[in-house]
Amino acid sequence: MSVFTKIIKGEIPSYQIAENDRFYAFLDIFPLVKGHTLVVPKLEVDRFFDVPEDLLAEYLVFARPIAKALEHIFPCNRVGISVVGLEVPHAHMHLIPINSADDMNFARPKLKLSEAEFKEVQEKIRAEMSKH
Amino acid sequence: MSVFTKIIKGEIPSYQIAENDRFYAFLDIFPLVKGHTLVVPKLEVDRFFDVPEDLLAEYLVFARPIAKALEHIFPCNRVGISVVGLEVPHAHMHLIPINSADDMNFARPKLKLSEAEFKEVQEKIRAEMSKH
Repeated sequence: MSVFTKIIKGEIPSYQIAENDRFYAFLDIFPLVKGHTLVVPKLEVDRFFDVPEDLLAEYLVFARPIAKALEHIFPCNRVGISVVGLEVPHAHMHLIPINSADDMNFARPKLKLSEAEFKEVQEKIRAEMSKH
Repeated sequence: MSVFTKIIKGEIPSYQIAENDRFYAFLDIFPLVKGHTLVVPKLEVDRFFDVPEDLLAEYLVFARPIAKALEHIFPCNRVGISVVGLEVPHAHMHLIPINSADDMNFARPKLKLSEAEFKEVQEKIRAEMSKH
């Protein structure tokens, strides 16, 4: 069982941002910038493009209101997407509020946020999403 | 009119990989690795998440057979996705065959390929896609 499946099942705690019966979104605990969010299909598939077509069709539609909330809350030019997938064998998409391409450079040191800061970020995003 | 719209209209030449009435895919002429492909909606929209929902629903489904062909042809662990969009104000997605996260580092020097090499890459991908 992947670490993401454990998060989805609630066996590992997470800062949940959004969920439906097919996808789960939560804050990356090693964020490149504030608001860095992971969107994961509940179906555990390793490679992103092995995710079945019906889920791929829903993926960006599910991610869109999250990205829109991030663009609204965080001072950024736009939200970027990164799918790498070399570390956790469970397809996932990074949503990252960016001002420069370097904001998506995974070799950069990650932010260290306190639990209170993560909760504040989570609550801001959820509050923004609940307006729509 | 964006440089991508000019490419889609054929006013600027490109190494076309796939096309339907809504999307156009072609080789990035500043590739990070061989096979680096751009997938662009024909509708000219700046920010990726401003692309209308019906097109977002088709985006990854259109990209999937291209990504599968890239995974088959090029020696890679998998195909990664990057959406940045700070340079060309027309939404686009990079498909990049990767072996390490650094293969998606846009600060890296780009490959310099000859026209013959681009054509060889283009033909390999198109031939692989035509099998399916």
